Formats: sequence, C-alpha cells, structure tokens
Amino acid sequence: MTKKTASYFDQVPEIKYEGAASGNPYAFKYYNPEEKVGGKSMEEQLRFSIAYWHTLTQDASDPFGQGTAERPWDHLQGMDKAKARVEAAFEFIEKIKAPYFCFHDIDIAPEGNSLKETNQNLDEITAMIKEYMKTSDVKLLWNTANMFTHPRFVHGAATSSNADVYAYAAAKVKKGLETGKELGAENYVFWGGREGYETLLNTDMKLEMDNLGHFYNMAVDYAKEIDFAPQFLIEPKPKEPTTHQYDFDVATATSFLYQYGLQDHFKFNIEANHATLAGHTFEHELRTARISGMLGSVDANQGDPLLGWDTDEFPTDLYSATLAMYEILKNGGLGRGGLNFDAKIRRGSFKPEDLFHAHIAGMDSFAIGLKVANKMIEDNFFENITKDRYRTFSSGIGEKITRGATSFHELEKHAMGLGRIEQDSGQLEKIKAGINQYLLRVNDL
Amino acid sequence: MTKKTASYFDQVPEIKYEGAASGNPYAFKYYNPEEKVGGKSMEEQLRFSIAYWHTLTQDASDPFGQGTAERPWDHLQGMDKAKARVEAAFEFIEKIKAPYFCFHDIDIAPEGNSLKETNQNLDEITAMIKEYMKTSDVKLLWNTANMFTHPRFVHGAATSSNADVYAYAAAKVKKGLETGKELGAENYVFWGGREGYETLLNTDMKLEMDNLGHFYNMAVDYAKEIDFAPQFLIEPKPKEPTTHQYDFDVATATSFLYQYGLQDHFKFNIEANHATLAGHTFEHELRTARISGMLGSVDANQGDPLLGWDTDEFPTDLYSATLAMYEILKNGGLGRGGLNFDAKIRRGSFKPEDLFHAHIAGMDSFAIGLKVANKMIEDNFFENITKDRYRTFSSGIGEKITRGATSFHELEKHAMGLGRIEQDSGQLEKIKAGINQYLLRVNDL
Amino acid sequence: MTKKTASYFDQVPEIKYEGAASGNPYAFKYYNPEEKVGGKSMEEQLRFSIAYWHTLTQDASDPFGQGTAERPWDHLQGMDKAKARVEAAFEFIEKIKAPYFCFHDIDIAPEGNSLKETNQNLDEITAMIKEYMKTSDVKLLWNTANMFTHPRFVHGAATSSNADVYAYAAAKVKKGLETGKELGAENYVFWGGREGYETLLNTDMKLEMDNLGHFYNMAVDYAKEIDFAPQFLIEPKPKEPTTHQYDFDVATATSFLYQYGLQDHFKFNIEANHATLAGHTFEHELRTARISGMLGSVDANQGDPLLGWDTDEFPTDLYSATLAMYEILKNGGLGRGGLNFDAKIRRGSFKPEDLFHAHIAGMDSFAIGLKVANKMIEDNFFENITKDRYRTFSSGIGEKITRGATSFHELEKHAMGLGRIEQDSGQLEKIKAGINQYLLRVNDL
Amino acid sequence: MTKKTASYFDQVPEIKYEGAASGNPYAFKYYNPEEKVGGKSMEEQLRFSIAYWHTLTQDASDPFGQGTAERPWDHLQGMDKAKARVEAAFEFIEKIKAPYFCFHDIDIAPEGNSLKETNQNLDEITAMIKEYMKTSDVKLLWNTANMFTHPRFVHGAATSSNADVYAYAAAKVKKGLETGKELGAENYVFWGGREGYETLLNTDMKLEMDNLGHFYNMAVDYAKEIDFAPQFLIEPKPKEPTTHQYDFDVATATSFLYQYGLQDHFKFNIEANHATLAGHTFEHELRTARISGMLGSVDANQGDPLLGWDTDEFPTDLYSATLAMYEILKNGGLGRGGLNFDAKIRRGSFKPEDLFHAHIAGMDSFAIGLKVANKMIEDNFFENITKDRYRTFSSGIGEKITRGATSFHELEKHAMGLGRIEQDSGQLEKIKAGINQYLLRVNDL
Ligand SMILES: [Co+2]
Ligand SMILES: [Co+2]
Ligand SMILES: [Co+2]
Ligand SMILES: [Co+2]
Ligand SMILES: [Co+2]
Ligand SMILES: [Co+2]
Ligand SMILES: [Co+2]
Ligand SMILES: [Co+2]
Repeated sequence: MTKKTASYFDQVPEIKYEGAASGNPYAFKYYNPEEKVGGKSMEEQLRFSIAYWHTLTQDASDPFGQGTAERPWDHLQGMDKAKARVEAAFEFIEKIKAPYFCFHDIDIAPEGNSLKETNQNLDEITAMIKEYMKTSDVKLLWNTANMFTHPRFVHGAATSSNADVYAYAAAKVKKGLETGKELGAENYVFWGGREGYETLLNTDMKLEMDNLGHFYNMAVDYAKEIDFAPQFLIEPKPKEPTTHQYDFDVATATSFLYQYGLQDHFKFNIEANHATLAGHTFEHELRTARISGMLGSVDANQGDPLLGWDTDEFPTDLYSATLAMYEILKNGGLGRGGLNFDAKIRRGSFKPEDLFHAHIAGMDSFAIGLKVANKMIEDNFFENITKDRYRTFSSGIGEKITRGATSFHELEKHAMGLGRIEQDSGQLEKIKAGINQYLLRVNDL
Repeated sequence: MTKKTASYFDQVPEIKYEGAASGNPYAFKYYNPEEKVGGKSMEEQLRFSIAYWHTLTQDASDPFGQGTAERPWDHLQGMDKAKARVEAAFEFIEKIKAPYFCFHDIDIAPEGNSLKETNQNLDEITAMIKEYMKTSDVKLLWNTANMFTHPRFVHGAATSSNADVYAYAAAKVKKGLETGKELGAENYVFWGGREGYETLLNTDMKLEMDNLGHFYNMAVDYAKEIDFAPQFLIEPKPKEPTTHQYDFDVATATSFLYQYGLQDHFKFNIEANHATLAGHTFEHELRTARISGMLGSVDANQGDPLLGWDTDEFPTDLYSATLAMYEILKNGGLGRGGLNFDAKIRRGSFKPEDLFHAHIAGMDSFAIGLKVANKMIEDNFFENITKDRYRTFSSGIGEKITRGATSFHELEKHAMGLGRIEQDSGQLEKIKAGINQYLLRVNDL
Repeated sequence: MTKKTASYFDQVPEIKYEGAASGNPYAFKYYNPEEKVGGKSMEEQLRFSIAYWHTLTQDASDPFGQGTAERPWDHLQGMDKAKARVEAAFEFIEKIKAPYFCFHDIDIAPEGNSLKETNQNLDEITAMIKEYMKTSDVKLLWNTANMFTHPRFVHGAATSSNADVYAYAAAKVKKGLETGKELGAENYVFWGGREGYETLLNTDMKLEMDNLGHFYNMAVDYAKEIDFAPQFLIEPKPKEPTTHQYDFDVATATSFLYQYGLQDHFKFNIEANHATLAGHTFEHELRTARISGMLGSVDANQGDPLLGWDTDEFPTDLYSATLAMYEILKNGGLGRGGLNFDAKIRRGSFKPEDLFHAHIAGMDSFAIGLKVANKMIEDNFFENITKDRYRTFSSGIGEKITRGATSFHELEKHAMGLGRIEQDSGQLEKIKAGINQYLLRVNDL
Repeated sequence: MTKKTASYFDQVPEIKYEGAASGNPYAFKYYNPEEKVGGKSMEEQLRFSIAYWHTLTQDASDPFGQGTAERPWDHLQGMDKAKARVEAAFEFIEKIKAPYFCFHDIDIAPEGNSLKETNQNLDEITAMIKEYMKTSDVKLLWNTANMFTHPRFVHGAATSSNADVYAYAAAKVKKGLETGKELGAENYVFWGGREGYETLLNTDMKLEMDNLGHFYNMAVDYAKEIDFAPQFLIEPKPKEPTTHQYDFDVATATSFLYQYGLQDHFKFNIEANHATLAGHTFEHELRTARISGMLGSVDANQGDPLLGWDTDEFPTDLYSATLAMYEILKNGGLGRGGLNFDAKIRRGSFKPEDLFHAHIAGMDSFAIGLKVANKMIEDNFFENITKDRYRTFSSGIGEKITRGATSFHELEKHAMGLGRIEQDSGQLEKIKAGINQYLLRVNDL
C-alpha cells in the first residue's frame, strides 16, 4: 500500500501555536503542545483526541434535515469512501496536532451484507490504519462498537428483547476488542445508546439488566483471553435515543457495576453534554468519578442548557473547561484516558474549514482551562477555601467523625454541651469573583 | 390527660364509601376500606398515611407569599398549638380513615431554647400522641428528624462543613429513633434535604459523603442497641433546596449504600414528585427499587411536569396511580411501608375543607389504581406482553444468556449463522390503548 | 389512469365501531362517526385528519439510527414509490375512516433536479390525488411547503440569510397555494421549521423578522390573486430544529402578526407537543388562541414531559384530550380546521399494523375526550365554578371594572372602605376529583 | 430629623477601584465609575441600582428553611427596623458606589392594620428617604407595588377573581405612583407575581386579561393626571409563583400590549433569570425588546440552568454580561433605565460582608462586559459578520425583499433561474473562539 500524496485540506495549513495576540484563524492562541504546565507538556496533560464519527463520517444532518456537510470525499462510495476518510483523517489529525483518535466500528468501515463481510471490511480498513500509524505519531485512544444505528438494534443490543440481537452485539464487541488490540487502543468504551428502554410498559427491566451484566463480564473475560488489557470505560448518558438509558450517570452506572461485581474492571468516560442532560454539571460527574477512583477519560464537548437534547457542541465555555481541568489535574491526570472531542460542527458550519476552526476553538479552550486550573492549584485557591471551611473536622470530635470512630451517644453529649453554633459564610459570590480574576489573567501565565 | 371533646372539623362528617355514582364531595367514590382487591382489603393493600407536616403544620406559604391556610388552631402559640394539632390530627385521620401517619420531629413539637428543651417538648407531645393512640386505630408509619429548616443546617446536617452541626444532627436522629420506638414506628426515614451541596466550588464532596456513610452506620448501630428494628428508608430527591442532593435517585443512593456497605440495612421511600424532578417517571423509581428488593414505602403525590420545583400535589393522575400500584402489587405489597400523602393543598385551597377534598381525591385515585392494576395482573396484561416479547430467552442460546452461561465465542458463532433477524414490534400504541380500556372499565370492577 | 386494485394493508380490515367492551384491536371502542355528540356527529365534531408525512412518508429513523419502518412500498423508488404511497394513503385513510388528510409538498412527490422538475413531479401526483378524491370522501384539510429538509434551507427559508433561498421559498409557497387550490384545501399552514436562529451571534434578527413579515403578506396577496381563500394558519413551535423559532408559541406569533399588520389574516394550528416544549399545556395554547378568536386547527399528538424534544406521540392521554375538546367545543368547533394526527409511531412500532393501532388509539382518545367534555359542558361543570368564583365582577364596582368604567380614584375609595377581604378557596383538588369522576363515567354516556 | 451617625457596616470600607491585579476583596477590579468607555463614564453607561428587597429586606430563607441572614438591624421591629434599613441602605449604596436603588412598597415600610395605616407608614419612610436623598447622590431608578406577598393576593391582584382585591391593588399602585413622583423615580415597574393562573380549571382567562388591560390603562391615566411621567415597565416572567404568568416573556407581553392598545406606553424591564426560565437566553429577551424599541431597563442577575426556579444569583458569567452589554450599547444605552441587581446572596452567604462581595462581583462582571462589548463594537466584530452574511440583501432582488417591494411572481421567476445555491458557513465555532479572545484581552483595554 502506498500512502496518499493528494491532500484533502489543501486550503488549511498545519496549525501552529502563535500566542494570544494572533489574529490568524488557523493558529492556536493557547494550545502550545510543548509548553510545560504543571510539570508536563500541554500535549501530555491534555491528550487530545479526534472523534472519527463527527469529523470524518457524519454529514451534519438533523432530525428535520438532510446532511449539509461538504467534504472532499462526498463523491465516493463504500470502501473507496472509507479509505479516503482514513487518508483525510491522518491529514486532519496531524495538521491539528492531536495525538489521539477514537472510532466506532462502522465509522471506519461500511457494513457488508453479512457479519462476515462487515468484519472483512473492518479488517481491511484496520490494516490500512495500522499502516498509516507506522509513519505517524497518531495513536488510538479508544474504539467501540456502534450498536444503535442499524435497525436490528431497534430494541437494544446487550439489552435487546431478542437473543439473536444479543449474540450479534457480542460478536461486534468481540471484534471490537480484537481491533483495539490490533491498533494498540488504550481503552475500550461502552456507550449504551439503546441499552435502556423506550417504555416500561413492555420491558422486563430485570432481565435486561442481568443480561447486560453478563455481557460486560464476558467482555472482560474475552479481553483477558486475548491478552488485551485496555481500560474498560462506560460512557453514561441519561436518555436519547432511548427514553431511559441504564447508564444514566456516573452514580447510576456505579450502582450497576457494584450489583454485578464489575466495579474493579471499569472506569468512566465522561461527556459534558451527557452530564447536563442528566441534570448535573460536567464537573459534578468528573468529581463523582474521581473520588471513587473511576475517572477514566473525557468526551470534551458542551450542550446548550436551553435545549433538551444532546447538541455535542465544540467546547468553548472557559468556566467549564477550567473546572474540568481542575478535576483532571486533581486526579493526577487522565492516565490512559484523553480529551476526546465528541463534538460536531453545527449544521450551519458545513465547510471543511469549520472542522479546523472548531477544533482550534476547543483545544484552545482546554489549554486555557489547563493553565488557569493549574495556577489555581499552585495557589491552593480551592484547597485553602475547603481547608478553612472544614477545619472543625481536623481535630477533636470532628476528627473522630471523619474516622468513623464516634457514636450517637458521644455526639449527643457533644451537642448537648453546645450553645449557638457559629457558622461560616460559604462565600460563593466572593469565590466566583475570584475565579473570574484568575481566568482573566490567563494571558499572563 | 383527658382527650378533647371539641371538634376542629365540625363542618365535615366522617368520610364514608358511597360508590362511583355519589355526588357527595365528602364521600369516597372508590376507596372502600373493607373491600377485597387482590386477596386483601383495600386498607391492607393501600396502607394510607397522613403527612403531619402538610396537613397539620404547614401554612401554605410559598417563596413569594405568606401563608394563606385558615386553620382552627391559628390563634394558638407554642405548645398549646402543638397540642391542638395533635387533637386535630387524630380527628382528621380518623375521619378520613387513614390507618397511618408520619411526622418530622419539629412538625409535632416546637423547638425550645436548647436541645434539652426541644427534647422535652418532643417528649411531652410524644406522650400525648401515645395516649391518643391507645384509643385509636391510628398507627405511626414512620418518623424522621427535620434537619433542614433551622439556620444551623445551612450547610447540611450529616454532611455539614461544621462538626458541631454533625453532632447536633446525630443527637436529633438518636432522639428520633427513641421517639419512633416509643410510638411503635414501622420505619425510620432519611430525607437529606440539605445533605448535598449548593456549589462544588467550596465543597469537599468526599469528606461529606464519608461522613454521611458513618452517620447512617451509627444510626443502624444505635437502633440495634436500643432494640428498635424499624425498616430504615432513604427518600431520594435530586435537588431542592440544595443544588445537588447526594441521594439524587434510587440508583444513586444504591451506589452510595454499596460503597459504604449499607445495602442490607436500607430500603427506599419513593416520592413521585422527586422521581420526576430527577428526570424519571414514578414507576421507574419504583421498578428500580423493586427489582433490587429495596422498595420500602411510597410518598404518594404528583408534580407538575412544566414546573421545575417540587409541587407536592395531591395525586389524581390515574395513569400514574395505576402504574404505581402495579409495581407495588408485583412487589407483593409494601410490607411495613405505606402510601404516605406527602402532598400539600395548593396555596389557593386554604380552607380546612380542602384538606378533606384533597385526601379524598388522592385516596380514590390510588383505590382506582389498585383496582385497575389488580385486574391487569389477574389478566396477565403486561406479563403476556413481556412473555411473548422476550420469548427467545426461554430456550437455546437465549436461555444460556440469561444464566450467564455462554461466551463471546459461542455468541459470535451463533451470530455468524444468522440471516436477517426478524424483530417484533414493541406495539406501544396498542398497549396504551389497552391501558385506557382497562382504566375506563374500573366502574365495572 | 386506473385506480389500483391491489391492497397495501390486506391484513387489516376496515375499522368499525364496536363499543367499549370490544376486544378487537382493529375496531374503534369509542369513535363512532355517525353518533351524535353535542348536536353534531362525531365525524363533524372531530374532523380527523391523517398526516401524510408520518403515515406514508417517514421511515422511523431517529438521530441515532436508520429507519426501521417496514412498508409495502419499500422496494420502490422515486415517482413509483410516490404513486404507491398515494394508493396506500387512500386505502389507509378510508379504512381508518378519517375524512381528511394533510401534506407537505415533498411528502407526496420527490424533488427533481430543478425547481421546474420538482413542480412537474408535484403536478403529476396532485393530478393523481385529485383523481382519487373524485371517488373518495377523503378531503384535504391543509397542505404546506417543506422548507426545512433540503440543505438549501440550512439558514432558514423566508428568514434565510441568503436572498436566493428566500426567492426559492417564495416559489415553493406559491406552488403550495396553487396545489391547495387545485385540491380544495381548507387551510394553508406555515410551520417555520428553520424560521428562527441557531445563534444570535451571527443573526440580524430584525432583518429576518421583517423579511418574514413581507413573506406572509405576499402569501396573503397571492392567494387573493388566484381566488383561493384558505384559512392561513401559523403552527407555533419554540425550538427544534433551530435553537429559537420566531413562532415560539401562540402569544409570540400573535405579537408578530400585530407588528406586521397580519392579525386578521391568520389563525393558529396548535400542536400539543409544541405547546409543552414551549413550557405550556396543550389547553393553554388552545385557550390563548380561542379567546383571541384565533383557534384554527389542531395537530393532535402528545409529548413525553421528561424528554426535551418533539416526540410527536399518538395522543392517548385522556386528560389532555378532554381538556382540548373542551376548548374546541367552547370555540364552537374548529370551523375549517380539524384534528390532524401529526403523530408518528415509535421507532419500535415499525409494522404496518402499528399505523392502525396508533390511529385507533388516538381517535378513540379524542372521541372519549369529546364525550366527556361535552357532558361537562352540558352540566356547566367548569362554568358553574367560574360563575361563582368571579361573582363579584357581576355587579357593583366589579361590573364597572370589567367594563373599564372605573378609575384609580374610585377603586382606592372602595379599597379604603374594605375590612378584611374574604376569599374563596380555588378548590383545585376537589375539581380534579370531579374530572376523574366524569372521565370514568364515559362508558355510560 | 437627624441623619444617623452610627454605621451598620463598619467592618467594610468604601469600595474603590484598584484595578485587575488587586487582591483586595473590598475593591473593584474593573468597575471604575469615572473611566470613559464608549464615550461615557462607566457610571453613566452602567447605571447600577441596588434592589432594596434583596439587600435590605430579605432574610435568606428558602422554601425548606428559615432565614439565615445576619443583619445589624435584626433586633429591631416594625417602623424602627424600617428606619434602620433606610439608614443602612444609604450607607451601603454609597459605599458600593451605585447611583440608584429600587424598591417595592412593603420593602421600605411594614404594612399596617389598614390600608390607611399602611400608607401612613409608607409616607413616613418616604419622607425619611427623601430627606436622605437631599444629601446623597443616590437616586430612585424605580419603585413598584408588592401585590404578591399578602394572602389577599392569593388569587392575583389586577387579575384576582375578587373585585375587592382588584380595587385594593389599584389603591396600591395609585400610592406607588404618588411615591414615585415624590422621590423622583425614573420608571415605574409592574412585575405580575400572581398575575396569571395556578390552573386553567377554575380560571376565566379572558376576564382576567381584560381586567389587567384596564388596570394598566388606568395606571397610565393616573400618572398623567398627577403630572408624573415615569417610563412604565413590564417585567416579564413565565411562571413562579403562579403556574403561568400572563407576562410570560417579552413577546407575550408585547402581544398583550398590542391587544389592549398599550404598546406606546410601556417598555420592558428584562431580568436575566426570568429569560432563562422562559426558555430564552438573556440576550434573546434584550434583543427582542431592542428591535421593537422597547428595551427599558434590566434586572441584572443570573440563574442556574440546571435548576427550575428563579435563583436570582448575582451575575458573574462574563459571557452573559458581555452579550447583555452589547445589546444595551446597540440600544444607545438604557435611557432612563439601569442595571438593577435583582439578585440575592445565597442562603449560605449570610454575613453582611457577603452583600459587598456579591455586589462587587456583579459590578465588576458588568464592567468587564461593558469594556469587552464596547471593544467588539469599535471593531465591528458582529457587524462585519452580519454585513457579510446578509450581503445578498443589499442589492438586486434581496434589496427589494427587504423593502417589501417584490411579489411571489417575481420571486418565483428569480428562483426558476437559479442553479445550485451557494451558501456560506455560519461559522459559529470560529465566532465563539473570537469572543473568547476578546474576553481574555479585557485587561489590556
Ligand atoms: Co460521547
Ligand atoms: Co453527546
Ligand atoms: Co417526600
Ligand atoms: Co416532595
Ligand atoms: Co405539527
Ligand atoms: Co411536533
Ligand atoms: Co426582577
Ligand atoms: Co428573579
């Protein structure tokens, strides 16, 4: 195989760091891969990843309209289109300077007329990607199996009401693990798009959840069998397309993992927009996973708080990026995970150039978030607040409470001896003003 | 002590069952306590309970307005008012024919100037209630400690940032368990009104959750110590008053219980309006608890799906009542739990008579739900749907799946042998028409 | 042209009324076209209409999955498929006994390679439909132009940022009016799917709204010119697919109509699910239009209050159907409008039979709503409540207030003379119990 | 009357501008009253106003808890407390350097036992405030009548079901206009807290809206009669406390004004949190009012997008502040309006110092927004985007469209001559990155 020489994005140069004052739309203003922040390079801290589906595969359609995306490979079909996308992917990822990418099986290769043919298509593209990876620094952050697009998954995959579909889903994940091994994936993700219910009125919830538990256990077993040790990740989402997904949020999925004895085998891939759809902030989900030691990877995007569906916008909100990076830094980084742009250009941003604008916007936003969060940690900004706020738990009865070394008897005795309890203000408004001050000083960092 | 002779609700007679055709607003049209449905009397199946706070204590104020409730005890103060409320409570509960009631500590007795004085007030009213219970059939379904109204709980109770507040909360729960034992409570409830956070920006979430875990463990220990064996219940709510409550929903609280080794000591008290605030249906929360064996009790009310706060309306939606009763019947009933009307009259329904209208509306609605759900179960309405829908899991590879007795190898082999998988329609529209038909035939049951 | 002889829905018989006790899924239990309710036949009162797009054209895809619908015409393409759909449409509509249907231009005929060719396709199918209408009782309730699916409408149609697109949209509506005239449509509908903005950040809202005002005025002018006098209808929707639609709800669109002098030329086509997406009940939107004399027609469906997008479910909620029919009956009926099932079968209800189940469910629900609402009106149920509640406005100062015949001076003087104002309870709980009683007696009506 | 000498906020100094690098919590980092931005001083551009109710009157209670606020006047009662609040108000407002304040009648003076006594209380405090204003630069931005707190308003005020209540409300607004005149108020505000319905089931919506129309007309008449010419402002809010407020949003209230012939007498007071509760952005409401010439004043606060009620937080989101200031600058400023902090400290921020922290946070945020928005306008940032985007409307058929000077005939002819229409990308992602760049350069402005 000869690597392509033609370019898909000739009009766009390699994206370089030019600094905050740059007026060049095709330059990073903040993301400077080699720059050290918090003891590591930005590249190591942020571990950006490109989502193949949004960047290479999707066409910017929506429920009320046909695709608008204009792509240089639009004239191609089938495997030819798939191969063009691989070529374009490597060009794009290298130009945008992301070290990683992610994909679902059907993002990279079209389904065939049988499972066997589908797997052959997949093998052919996998081999092509592997070949490209040899001469590229681009690595695979994670892959997954799409078990929601095809009509066969109408009633779910590992929670389908039909055993044949369950088997088919198992075959797809088996193949996904083999593909991941072949390409050196660092993680394997489960997003249960249709693992949930449309209505309880025809659903045996217990049977479906039990079957899902078995499914995850088989996946863990098979990976071990083939000597592949990715970090398994669950990506929670509360709803859409199903009315209720079983992996509603981090806490719900944690409950599931405990009930099926899987808590040591999984971490979470947390998506910002899924968090807000579940009624949480992005940082809530990150924190919930972090304090349980289960923060694995991140789907970096943002939603529109006034819309009730997953908009998967490119992340540009600097508050959210800063608080996310705070959680990640406090986690000691993402380990094998990364910041994957599970984000799609708006339907109105249909030009190939928009893919670059959008990723630059997102990468700069997280670079800003990294710098601001790191500075706040260096200054112990939040740490000083909580250290003071919880100071009564550092000694005496408070310290015993934190150790679980007291009793209702002792606590009642303590309470009986109290007069009016003096409380501290939570000072939220002052804290928020402080965060704004940190943010606006980023150009000096 | 002499029991009162004066009436608080002279204008309202004892509420009796008169049947569906009755035009008497002070009569049950469906709730007939002695009538047998599903092998038990309606009274035994429904185990209705009156919420002391909404019916006796609250004044119908809202965040934008003073209380409007007109109550016969409005002219009284302090312990005199508390005693009048006890008298009125027994008159009301007996007239409305509910077998149970529930209360928070400060619903029944005012706080004193010290914890000691508060406990004395509580003891005095507890003794009075106990005296009334001797000559009444009314029983205590559950009690709990209010740890959210007083300013000391501004930053939480068992998750407060202040150790003194934690101790004070422990003293209140200790007293609550003693009160519950004294009055023969069947359950003890935790609703963590301020157990959560207003903002992550000043919150040590791990410390707070660890402290909460210790707190629950101490409660379990203390109950055992005093030889009191209530069913402990957590009542999940996602938010309000805090931005985020730690007991967001059944699944979240289950995760918490597992992480703190408490899963065998707790069940859930599920409130309809809390379910919808969390983005779930009432029946979702009931089902989630049921299939984990953790459905303990129910706060029967309803919310307004277009409003974003807990409206605690009296339950009149017959769809919701029917699906709730279906879950309860499939659970084999509520055991020690009951259907507690954690529901408040609207601010505009401020007359004492409205308390009767509202409870009659709610009790009739659940009586209808019981009759309809029982008939559907007798007919195997839902059971036939799921039996057919999941039939492929009854034998062959499907049966092995449900036992966890297969592998990705075997499943892949099965999938490779499949042609196009035939799927069944989920038939949701047909099912919904069927439910309407059942509902509209209730007068014939 | 010879009309088809082959059947598309052989497996389903003509749907007949069999009464509430019927167990036949292919029978009406409540909708009895000839039965008189409120002085007219059910058929005249309800004026049911079939939405061509959901029933004949759509494939049950969703944003995460391919179409699942199994239709007898799936093997056909282009104009052949369009013609098969016409044949199937008449068979379906006649079997389901709906007197009306509705369509968007591209529902009935595929777009060609040019506007001219598209119009030729449209003419050919229009002629075929006209031919079928000659020997059928089926009539056209309304038609409209789809100006949201094609990529050219990415930035709107009559509010596009591109003048060519605006012209194209005008040509489509011009053709739509001609088609409507040809087929005797009773109304012409505007649903502004992309008439709004995705983001204010690049939007000239004033220019777009001015252009839209001109557009509506030109439509009114052109209809007059061709001697076609449909009732023009705006169908409000707050969002989806755009972030903000200019016709957010009835009140917003009314403001628009006044600002552009169009208030006498338009009424509203009110969709239940659009109402709830806007934060209103269905009956709120109906009432708002009704009291302004602008209730024109209805898109009968329902949403899922826990989902944030337009689910367009078939309407089965009897509360909603009853309150909707109350508004319609108080409006003196729908005039030239009808009850159009802008409702789609769930993605999991993909069999042709489900189209029948779903319509039967919806038609029976509105038949029940009609009977219940009519009985309540006969009994003056709501009228007695409001007559009593507002009685102080019948005489004295109250009567002067309603006539606008008083002043702040007179009112202050009146107020100064008042003692404590006695208020009535709003009695919401009692009213809701009353509604349940009416509903459950429908089998006796 | 002697003005007080004692201080209520001794611990806090006069707040001065110290610049972005300041670490002094009691200093402005951005708000520099005399600094010129866009041709006027910041003080003139921003016209900050203090909300008496949140800053002086409220106690930080919430629906689940008693007030937590610690205020130096907590020990006082009745008129003594009211007078202390006036003294504290002037001290606070002067220290925080706001030129304006706003109040409801009952914020400044307690209700008496009769309307007459209430008015006497009001007169006494009004006189005291007038005396203080003589030696202060503080001015009254607007006042209003609280017609939602007292139980008499349980069913509304100008939309009450009781004519006596309507009269009482009229007397209050009459007094409010007299008070406004006495203190030189620049505007008079109507926020219809209970002007709406709890349920349609007992509501005569037409009668209520007609009465409200008469009420507004009488207010306009009375102001003219007493030679007082404030700008009348409606403050829309969609819901809370009522289920549905008649002034849902700007568009809804505009429709109302047109229907009652009031459109020339009113502008809008737009609150950020009310906008988001209605499903809109703050800037949407500002834009909607602006392009109709009806942007009057602003209640500057922010909500929590994940909570469904009005949180009235102090505004610290710099995106929102920037886009709001953009609308205000494009409006040519606020005229007689101002930026009123209708914002309350969190229940957990209960110390007097928090009032200063919170206002500093809000004032700095809007100062930043002003500087950033002004710079963007100087650079024609948004103007260049829209100029290019809508360029086809500058000439030819586009220009005729904008003038309403074309027809469907001409437009169809134009459309027939078109080939594929070339569209521009909306470039939202690039625009958002640009806004971030502007924001982060504020320290250089
Ligand atoms: Co994702
Ligand atoms: Co997403
Ligand atoms: Co409850
Ligand atoms: Co509640
Ligand atoms: Co519609
Ligand atoms: Co719809
Ligand atoms: Co306000
Ligand atoms: Co507000």
